[in-house]
Amino acid sequence: MPPPKTVKIVEVGPRDGLQNEPAIIATATKAELIARLGKAGLRAIEATAFVSPRWVPQMADNAAVMAAIERLPGVAYPVLTPNLQGLEAALAAGAREVAVFGAASESFSQKNINCSIADSLKRFEPVVTAARQVGVQVRGYVSCVLGCPYEGEVQPTAVAQVAGALFDMGCYEVSLGDTIGVGTPEAAKRLIEAVSARVPLDCIAGHYHDTYGMAIANIYASLQCGVAVFDASVAGLGGCPYAKGASGNVATEDVVYLLNGLGIATGIDLDALIDCSAWISATLGRPPGSKVARARIGLPSPATEPS
Amino acid sequence: MPPPKTVKIVEVGPRDGLQNEPAIIATATKAELIARLGKAGLRAIEATAFVSPRWVPQMADNAAVMAAIERLPGVAYPVLTPNLQGLEAALAAGAREVAVFGAASESFSQKNINCSIADSLKRFEPVVTAARQVGVQVRGYVSCVLGCPYEGEVQPTAVAQVAGALFDMGCYEVSLGDTIGVGTPEAAKRLIEAVSARVPLDCIAGHYHDTYGMAIANIYASLQCGVAVFDASVAGLGGCPYAKGASGNVATEDVVYLLNGLGIATGIDLDALIDCSAWISATLGRPPGSKVARARIGLPSPATEPS
Repeated sequence: MPPPKTVKIVEVGPRDGLQNEPAIIATATKAELIARLGKAGLRAIEATAFVSPRWVPQMADNAAVMAAIERLPGVAYPVLTPNLQGLEAALAAGAREVAVFGAASESFSQKNINCSIADSLKRFEPVVTAARQVGVQVRGYVSCVLGCPYEGEVQPTAVAQVAGALFDMGCYEVSLGDTIGVGTPEAAKRLIEAVSARVPLDCIAGHYHDTYGMAIANIYASLQCGVAVFDASVAGLGGCPYAKGASGNVATEDVVYLLNGLGIATGIDLDALIDCSAWISATLGRPPGSKVARARIGLPSPATEPS
Repeated sequence: MPPPKTVKIVEVGPRDGLQNEPAIIATATKAELIARLGKAGLRAIEATAFVSPRWVPQMADNAAVMAAIERLPGVAYPVLTPNLQGLEAALAAGAREVAVFGAASESFSQKNINCSIADSLKRFEPVVTAARQVGVQVRGYVSCVLGCPYEGEVQPTAVAQVAGALFDMGCYEVSLGDTIGVGTPEAAKRLIEAVSARVPLDCIAGHYHDTYGMAIANIYASLQCGVAVFDASVAGLGGCPYAKGASGNVATEDVVYLLNGLGIATGIDLDALIDCSAWISATLGRPPGSKVARARIGLPSPATEPS
């Protein structure tokens, strides 16, 4: 399978990246982050989540964020909607794309969204149907695709089953999440092989966390399978809640650097993206979690900082 | 080309990793680091450098380090020897394997070792000959193989020429160094293709720096070309002197984690290696520059530390 000539990056920093921040981020900061990402050339920017503020207080300003976004032509601003209540709120706030999120591991589904995989799929079905009835696209997420913090190994066939169910109910794309970042490249290839037997390859996205430093290699392996959509988070925003202090999302800058090196077009201006990374990192009071950004802007390396 | 079933890792932490440390590390610490690496299963551990202490003060205790090493059977402890004087001192200190180091870029050769590429090769020839006459193996290094801090792009044919010259003069293995860590996987593949036209594939090693976060992907790409020897540094010791504060050597733990995931044998005990990483990092007063080590031992992530 030849690697794709162009790749779409779905920027998840404003949502997946910020959702676990301990201090509440101002709505204006979130809106500026989204604006800067759009100006850097991102064409899909996950903006917020319509989930209970009791569970995710950081996303309590979801409607305010949606109202504050200056929408650029051709840019999608998807939001998470776990249920019909969330979908209604998202639509009322002007969302034109939403996402539902399931898991490939029973234990993770129970602990993360409080129900079995089967029940979660039953819950998503009316959300997807209702969204599509009003012309709103729905993206599906599957977490724990290469390992589960509670169960360990996860079978590719288990992922294919959940991904297939999401696709069958009307999700236009299914994002496969290595939630704990334990995957390695050949495992990623076996996963994509299994899932692409149920979901067309051009409807599969890779969402790799860099907890074990494998995300860029997993993306390279996935490109070799023909996958052409990847999720990433500017500055690597978003730690890994299952390994205290470890990193989470792969940094968008690093993914763009890889793709530039491979001659694969993204439409993203790496310099503008690094500026955005430096800005949000300074705003949050830390160095960027992107090696490319750190090499380019010459910040102290974490590995040489005294602990 | 099928990937190799086993890989040899050449551990460069005690030399390449420590050589730019600002504070002088005690000889006993270096010896303990080498001992712990040997116990973790490393079979090639670059121990020190016989270079002028005026240029590299950190390696001034080279003979003392060699005397302090408890040699394990089957483990090589190579040392750098840039010239005949260095070789004589290394042999007197009991070295049984040495290494010479050239560059693929003229500007880098001039600035790093103060002579042209051609002159450096002329200087290495008697070193290699003299070493082999006493039954001592010689490894060759080529730096700047995927980019030069002064010249930018470096042609694979230029690398192949230097690598070929080192091989022809008797180096048993040539290590290709992405000194500034700018390379990406397809460039690494083109490089290996060019070099393997001059040097047998099983005499080529990959030495990738992780400055731009690409090292693990470059190793994965090199494995796909059949390369079976990689240099790495425990805890990612060794920053990048050409990008202030950025990281340098790829962390050995991350390479072993990748290879374990790919089902490629290394003979290295990852847990013991992570213990060694935690120990040397604590000794140097910083968190390990390895994502695998940080994920496993739960240290604060650099990306979430306040700056």
